[in-house]
Amino acid sequence: MRTIDWADGAIEMIDQTALPGRVDVLRISDIDELIAAIQRLAVRGAPALGVAGALGVALLAARSGSDLARVRTDAARLRAARPTAVNLAWGVDRALARLDEGPDAVLLEALAVRDEDLAACVAMGANGADLLRELLGNGAKRLMTICNTGGLAAVERGTALGVAQTVFERGELAEVIAMETRPLLQGARLTAWELQQMGAPFRLAVDSAGPFLLARGAADAVLIGADRITANGDTANKVGSFSLALAARHAGVPFLVVAPESTVDVDTPNGGAIEIEDRGSAEVVGFGGVRTAPEGTVAVNPAFDVTPAEFITAIVTDQRVIWTSKGQTPAVG
Amino acid sequence: MRTIDWADGAIEMIDQTALPGRVDVLRISDIDELIAAIQRLAVRGAPALGVAGALGVALLAARSGSDLARVRTDAARLRAARPTAVNLAWGVDRALARLDEGPDAVLLEALAVRDEDLAACVAMGANGADLLRELLGNGAKRLMTICNTGGLAAVERGTALGVAQTVFERGELAEVIAMETRPLLQGARLTAWELQQMGAPFRLAVDSAGPFLLARGAADAVLIGADRITANGDTANKVGSFSLALAARHAGVPFLVVAPESTVDVDTPNGGAIEIEDRGSAEVVGFGGVRTAPEGTVAVNPAFDVTPAEFITAIVTDQRVIWTSKGQTPAVG
Repeated sequence: MRTIDWADGAIEMIDQTALPGRVDVLRISDIDELIAAIQRLAVRGAPALGVAGALGVALLAARSGSDLARVRTDAARLRAARPTAVNLAWGVDRALARLDEGPDAVLLEALAVRDEDLAACVAMGANGADLLRELLGNGAKRLMTICNTGGLAAVERGTALGVAQTVFERGELAEVIAMETRPLLQGARLTAWELQQMGAPFRLAVDSAGPFLLARGAADAVLIGADRITANGDTANKVGSFSLALAARHAGVPFLVVAPESTVDVDTPNGGAIEIEDRGSAEVVGFGGVRTAPEGTVAVNPAFDVTPAEFITAIVTDQRVIWTSKGQTPAVG
Repeated sequence: MRTIDWADGAIEMIDQTALPGRVDVLRISDIDELIAAIQRLAVRGAPALGVAGALGVALLAARSGSDLARVRTDAARLRAARPTAVNLAWGVDRALARLDEGPDAVLLEALAVRDEDLAACVAMGANGADLLRELLGNGAKRLMTICNTGGLAAVERGTALGVAQTVFERGELAEVIAMETRPLLQGARLTAWELQQMGAPFRLAVDSAGPFLLARGAADAVLIGADRITANGDTANKVGSFSLALAARHAGVPFLVVAPESTVDVDTPNGGAIEIEDRGSAEVVGFGGVRTAPEGTVAVNPAFDVTPAEFITAIVTDQRVIWTSKGQTPAVG
């Protein structure tokens, strides 16, 4: 099953807010529905957002006929639906570049974005699993990860969790320790579900236990995805990634970023220039309808954090391994 | 209102599992009820556990009459109810030392433990607030903390949050950033409630946001409590403390441990010798009746972590400031 796809003139996607309880498929044929789905995280994950952006423009082109100005206005709104993730804008721009050639060309481009993601995830899995062999040998590996970077974050296979999947398929996975990933619990809800579906051994932990588990030698490597990788290698990813990077350094454990090339944003010089989305108080003061903090509590809720390149061992893409720990950067590989 | 006290021959305590929704007072006159209350965290916090241990022995002495062997057996069970917290054992031992003098002597000792906690919290508040002036000056301070170390963790005023309270009373508090403290959310449920009760400015954050907020300069100091401080200054505290310590070091921000002298355990040489309680999967895979991870998910759930002394600027007790960052240790101040 694909996380997001095009079917009979509309976008179909698994509603990730309903997992792991239910597997609901949304059928979206309206741009405002798509923007709402993106903002409430029914679809999330950098690669999947790239596909959503491209398919969204295909939807606009198919519906708005010859009113190209209207398509561009709506595409700009779609592009801005999540400010930190570079892939959404990238997917929108790729499809939009074909607008003058008509709706069919736009759709073909969007489907190409989808198909390239399928291939890129296979390549990232192989590149990452090869790198782990290089760093850790051929034995069984204990991998720690945060958020969801599996098939649900892409189209069919994932980025960081895609590497774990490849390691598992090669018979080299001892365990995944998945961080639950507050506030929206993508680790508990989505990553645990994916690992169960693939039959891989795993344990779940609260986010703040990760650094201590690393200090006690519980994992051999940390793998994260990325929402944006800047020219110098600084990486924006789900909040909590930075604390795992600090702890991996303290524990002497490799810390790998796994993301498609489309996540690399050489126009942003470093992490200080990344806009960090604050998603407001509601996600923090409760969960699943259960209020956890007293009425009136205000939260600071950065959805992402920035891991400086100095804490990253290497960045693995579908095309290359960037050894940040050896002075390489995405801009000058 | 006191968190825990002795009233008409029984122990009365606020049921902290019901906060912030309700303020329920439990009346406990049976040792098994007390052990259960401790284990489900109806009463928690190192100082409060010391008082609970002492009052528990008073309860046993009053009920078991002349069967001192029985008292000692039950006291041993009480003592072991939470393995990481040294104060519980300390409170039990203090009251038990008076057992041969009869139930009244035991009760007087337990009440002395309670009264000493009241005085110790006032002293810790003053010592900590003075130290923050020394480190940061007299201006408004932004303080970050984790878990609940306020009045609910002690009898009336707290340890780390007690320092924040004193800073607030002195007109020097700009803001507290409270970590929510998964899995049991003592920060969201208890610390936010206490800060609201005292009218102090605060914001709540998910645990994994703390390190990034520190990196972005959001707080001037981090204050934590302690469940056990070893001879070399290594400190066991709520899981998540260690990641804040790593991040405080990275940000160049003071990291202070605030705890009564009774938390110092010079018989334990260092953090590697501390038994870390794993509280099982149930707390992690759901909250408040809402399941967050798929059925069958197993969690690793260390309730505490250990912050090495090298990451601690100073330890503040009711009696002294131990400058770990200047080579002092609790054993050799």
